[in-house]
Amino acid sequence: MTQQWHLPEERFFHPNPTQRRFARELYQSVAGLPIISPHGHVDPSLFADAQATFGTPVELLIIPDHYIFRMCYSQGIPLGALGVPKGAGEQDQRKIWQTFADHFYLFRGTPTGIWLAYMFKIVFGIEEKLTGATAQHIYDQMVEKLASPEFRPRALFERFNIEVLCTTDFATDALNDHQAIRSSGWGGDIRPTFRPDDVVHLLRPGWRQHVDKLSELTGGDVHSYPSLIRALEERRAFFKSLGAVATDSDGTTLATGELSPRQAEQIFQRALSGQATAEDAARFFGHMLMESARMSIEDGLVMQVHFGSYRNHNQMLFDACGPDMGCDIPIQAEFTCNLRPLLNKYGNDPRLTFIAFTLDESTYSRELAPLAGHYPAMKLGPPWWFHDSLNGMQRYFHNVIETAGLYNTVGFNDDTRSFPSIPARHDVWRRASANWIAGLVLRGIVDMDDAREMMVDMAYRLVKRAYKFDDQPGG
Amino acid sequence: MTQQWHLPEERFFHPNPTQRRFARELYQSVAGLPIISPHGHVDPSLFADAQATFGTPVELLIIPDHYIFRMCYSQGIPLGALGVPKGAGEQDQRKIWQTFADHFYLFRGTPTGIWLAYMFKIVFGIEEKLTGATAQHIYDQMVEKLASPEFRPRALFERFNIEVLCTTDFATDALNDHQAIRSSGWGGDIRPTFRPDDVVHLLRPGWRQHVDKLSELTGGDVHSYPSLIRALEERRAFFKSLGAVATDSDGTTLATGELSPRQAEQIFQRALSGQATAEDAARFFGHMLMESARMSIEDGLVMQVHFGSYRNHNQMLFDACGPDMGCDIPIQAEFTCNLRPLLNKYGNDPRLTFIAFTLDESTYSRELAPLAGHYPAMKLGPPWWFHDSLNGMQRYFHNVIETAGLYNTVGFNDDTRSFPSIPARHDVWRRASANWIAGLVLRGIVDMDDAREMMVDMAYRLVKRAYKFDDQPGG
Amino acid sequence: MTQQWHLPEERFFHPNPTQRRFARELYQSVAGLPIISPHGHVDPSLFADAQATFGTPVELLIIPDHYIFRMCYSQGIPLGALGVPKGAGEQDQRKIWQTFADHFYLFRGTPTGIWLAYMFKIVFGIEEKLTGATAQHIYDQMVEKLASPEFRPRALFERFNIEVLCTTDFATDALNDHQAIRSSGWGGDIRPTFRPDDVVHLLRPGWRQHVDKLSELTGGDVHSYPSLIRALEERRAFFKSLGAVATDSDGTTLATGELSPRQAEQIFQRALSGQATAEDAARFFGHMLMESARMSIEDGLVMQVHFGSYRNHNQMLFDACGPDMGCDIPIQAEFTCNLRPLLNKYGNDPRLTFIAFTLDESTYSRELAPLAGHYPAMKLGPPWWFHDSLNGMQRYFHNVIETAGLYNTVGFNDDTRSFPSIPARHDVWRRASANWIAGLVLRGIVDMDDAREMMVDMAYRLVKRAYKFDDQPGG
Repeated sequence: MTQQWHLPEERFFHPNPTQRRFARELYQSVAGLPIISPHGHVDPSLFADAQATFGTPVELLIIPDHYIFRMCYSQGIPLGALGVPKGAGEQDQRKIWQTFADHFYLFRGTPTGIWLAYMFKIVFGIEEKLTGATAQHIYDQMVEKLASPEFRPRALFERFNIEVLCTTDFATDALNDHQAIRSSGWGGDIRPTFRPDDVVHLLRPGWRQHVDKLSELTGGDVHSYPSLIRALEERRAFFKSLGAVATDSDGTTLATGELSPRQAEQIFQRALSGQATAEDAARFFGHMLMESARMSIEDGLVMQVHFGSYRNHNQMLFDACGPDMGCDIPIQAEFTCNLRPLLNKYGNDPRLTFIAFTLDESTYSRELAPLAGHYPAMKLGPPWWFHDSLNGMQRYFHNVIETAGLYNTVGFNDDTRSFPSIPARHDVWRRASANWIAGLVLRGIVDMDDAREMMVDMAYRLVKRAYKFDDQPGG
Repeated sequence: MTQQWHLPEERFFHPNPTQRRFARELYQSVAGLPIISPHGHVDPSLFADAQATFGTPVELLIIPDHYIFRMCYSQGIPLGALGVPKGAGEQDQRKIWQTFADHFYLFRGTPTGIWLAYMFKIVFGIEEKLTGATAQHIYDQMVEKLASPEFRPRALFERFNIEVLCTTDFATDALNDHQAIRSSGWGGDIRPTFRPDDVVHLLRPGWRQHVDKLSELTGGDVHSYPSLIRALEERRAFFKSLGAVATDSDGTTLATGELSPRQAEQIFQRALSGQATAEDAARFFGHMLMESARMSIEDGLVMQVHFGSYRNHNQMLFDACGPDMGCDIPIQAEFTCNLRPLLNKYGNDPRLTFIAFTLDESTYSRELAPLAGHYPAMKLGPPWWFHDSLNGMQRYFHNVIETAGLYNTVGFNDDTRSFPSIPARHDVWRRASANWIAGLVLRGIVDMDDAREMMVDMAYRLVKRAYKFDDQPGG
Repeated sequence: MTQQWHLPEERFFHPNPTQRRFARELYQSVAGLPIISPHGHVDPSLFADAQATFGTPVELLIIPDHYIFRMCYSQGIPLGALGVPKGAGEQDQRKIWQTFADHFYLFRGTPTGIWLAYMFKIVFGIEEKLTGATAQHIYDQMVEKLASPEFRPRALFERFNIEVLCTTDFATDALNDHQAIRSSGWGGDIRPTFRPDDVVHLLRPGWRQHVDKLSELTGGDVHSYPSLIRALEERRAFFKSLGAVATDSDGTTLATGELSPRQAEQIFQRALSGQATAEDAARFFGHMLMESARMSIEDGLVMQVHFGSYRNHNQMLFDACGPDMGCDIPIQAEFTCNLRPLLNKYGNDPRLTFIAFTLDESTYSRELAPLAGHYPAMKLGPPWWFHDSLNGMQRYFHNVIETAGLYNTVGFNDDTRSFPSIPARHDVWRRASANWIAGLVLRGIVDMDDAREMMVDMAYRLVKRAYKFDDQPGG
């Protein structure tokens, strides 16, 4: 007999019957609330055209998802056998799908396994579990669904009950897709997020071309540090005019600190002439985080920083395939000293909302929760990337909330590139939150009145308040 | 209907009925044992005068408690609105109380919330939960209680069944309050603890004045390193004559290491002439930890060190309000290399009891448990500060005991500035311990005979033995 | 009434009845599978002679086991009172046994306590719990058992159902015991593991003598870096001829990186002339890890590295008694940057199996799981040393599997010096695994079909595949 997907109604809840009952009650109180997705990497072009589709099942689920192909790669499956990167290697979609299905057991006990089960069963209505034996039959069903109007991106956006979705866009992006979405008359609320990485990380490949692009977009000439600042401010205003509520930075180096205008100019000039050192780049980035906070106080954009990923760790793979190949690896983080310049200058200002994300969980209870539990400007982002999982969430609740308090956190970010995984990810968060709160009730730590409020806060209100969606009626 | 405090009889126990039954049995076996409080920051002046009172509810609960005002501050409430620091900002006690009550939801799921619920309901007999709506009525009741003789500090000390309470006192403190307590004829056993931070941290603000004060108190002239050592030894003897059983140091820098007498003298002279560097200060402190161990072997005082807090992280707040404003933030700690000089010289000597505290939980299983599980002199202090919480205790039990063994730990320290929170904090420890031990029984790791012994050890015997209270009959 | 050992049938399982039922079912499915022990420190001489015995109970359980004597030592018991090191101090075996029994309570809640309970009750059939009162009676029973043929090493090997046992042997070991085992005609499958630490750590005491020994064994003259490499390759081939499937290194320093042949030669010459610096030694070791990977790709031996132990932390004890005295202490580890050279050069090659072990659990979710979840060559070893415990395993499952996936782990290593503890240790792993998988089922994360496969993988198949036992029929 063919196996079925295993998605019991009370999944992810503690086995104790009383806790399970409380958790279910709490979960059900928010299961129908709209999804707010303030940070992620969905491609806005999916929504720019009403007729856009997701392509083949392989194009939808495998090629863009480094969670999936890194795991297969780690077990010796060549990326080419999965058609990765797009256009390379195997081109027979059914063969790729079969390889994926043959190795689906690798995802046992992983968040990817959980998200995929939800997608297949709940999003696509497929009852059979994916195995080597069921692969082709499931492929057939997926193809059929993906061809239907109900599975176009805009239709799923509406079905998923997404209240607002923020994408992540480079400072040099002209935001044509976002403009097209707005001018199309479609009602979906999709907003860009301002990510200046390409022009503030002086040693990133292509930095000079990105600066030139920035010059072009701002109708000026970014030839000096002051002109860079002016261009960034102009771009922020442009993003904001298209609904942006936040910025985001990739903090590979963690030290914040202010340069004098002269120092900033000297480093910028060295960069323009191709002479910037690694230390220059780190100091400049640390200074630009300070500037980012200043600008956020002025223009009201929420400041997000994702700290501590060593990008493109596997040089061979980066040389062959470029970034986002599943080989970004976390590094140790230190925040108490590194964030001090930023927090000392701007952290006492309640106009700033600075949301920090980390990949180093040892900093949760040691540094980030105490900092967020003190500085008015600082909030702590939800578990990120590898830690956006049932256990990761449990560790987060366990290590953060007692010290930071729930109200210095900001609800959930799905942070996904895979649009159809959005409801699965929010469902995991809502269930994990419900289960955690139920445990607090059962152990006499909070009462049911508080629990009910906390549940809605975690599923909806915290994120809405942190990203100021209430304050952005026009968008 | 007004909400009530939620303090179920079996709070903090695991929901499994069998574990809960074992936990309750274990807890009840120690619930009536006296409290031993070997380390904390209660103001001894509260007990020096039989008529002393706690002042207003705001003076009792809010102004001295950085756990409370840091959380409010983190959510944008100005400290002045809470009357912090004492004498500044809002002076209307009822208005402050209202602000606090309006934001009491911030403490959901935090240890502060748990302690306050216990204080209100069990210490003060107030049934209603604190909210904006109940704030003024509760204030009235608190005022009435605080005016009654039953709520004077000495009366609560007796009601709390405190066998011994140790305060923390600077080396330069004349201990007048402690002398007054002893000469008053009152039977409460309150003892000082010797904390030389002010004279061994060469760069602390006011260091020179503290050295002068030390000179004055020891009738000598602390003008050289040897005279500093003599003065410290003299003050230790004086503290001991008033019942002290321990010393304490604040280890912001972690490296221990011996200086030659000449090096120590040179650094001390640079400090006297205002020329000491940060490196001087760190090396001198590391050397003074070695000296502290030597003196402890000679005079028998237990040596406590609290490692790894970055004091006064928020410069603006420190400049405006001074220390202890809720902005001390933990830093990463390293003990294996840093403690090696100390442990290599004195760690094999069973006459020394060296109790280490950490704010970096990643060192529990990696460094501190293995060290405490080997060196005869070293013991591991209980979860400290941010980690003195239900989850913090659980992580401590989980990470420490398997490697260090229970018998290289020292029971509980409440470490509080807030005297009326003492029974709440010990109650949490006793319940968390009972629950942990019950879990061991239920999973077949220890039997009930062992469990019963462990329970009494954790609630009473370990702390009594570690701090040598049995050996200090006179005090 | 005398107390009995407490080893309930469902020990180590979660108290929830449903989880317990699933866990028991899963555990029972593997309880009878043979033991594969791919890494440990059992003395092969025990098996070289059919008549070998374990000696006295003290010689069996106390003298060789630093887990036991470190804990006693930490509580002020002089090592001499335990007859440690062998031949020193107390020689009255019954007195030593009494001291141990009097302090057996120190092991409450520790893995040592669990292993000993299993050994006494299940291996030796002793029902009474060890206490001061039962000490001598238990001693009598132990002596009687140890004198019987059923308790000779080979008999226990067979009774324990050990399919294969790997020892750890220095590169300079002539493997006489292994040769004797093979030529004896006995059917036990015991294999050496190649550990080159003594000749690749340039500053280890005795390094020069070990190099001379290596020269002698390889019939050449190890006078240069190329001759060292040749000698190591020759020894690896010799180990392999006696069944070795793996190498092992002790990675005290963590940085990998390639030297040029000229640099390697220069450092090696400095070492030969006694002039190597600590930096030389660290760079040379980091280079030899690269060479080890290259050789593993060529000869197929699995490459194990145990990272992050500060050896012989207690200088006094090391000077008096030598290594392995219970005072190796973990240090912080960093893998993302340190392993990058190794992984960039060899990590994409599926012919290499590189198994990393750590004592720094903070690297599980932050570094090791992401690395193992990407690089085809890298696998993550099971919880090591202090973390080879019920809680340590739970933390490992919790922190590793979601990101690395189960299939980038390698089952269990008992890593023991104490041969009779082997079944106890595997029993703990199998029960902990069963309990963890049962929890996944109960929370709807995996279904029972997957659970059954995972159980067999964790108990048997993963280790068999990782160490290529299937490929080594001859051995």
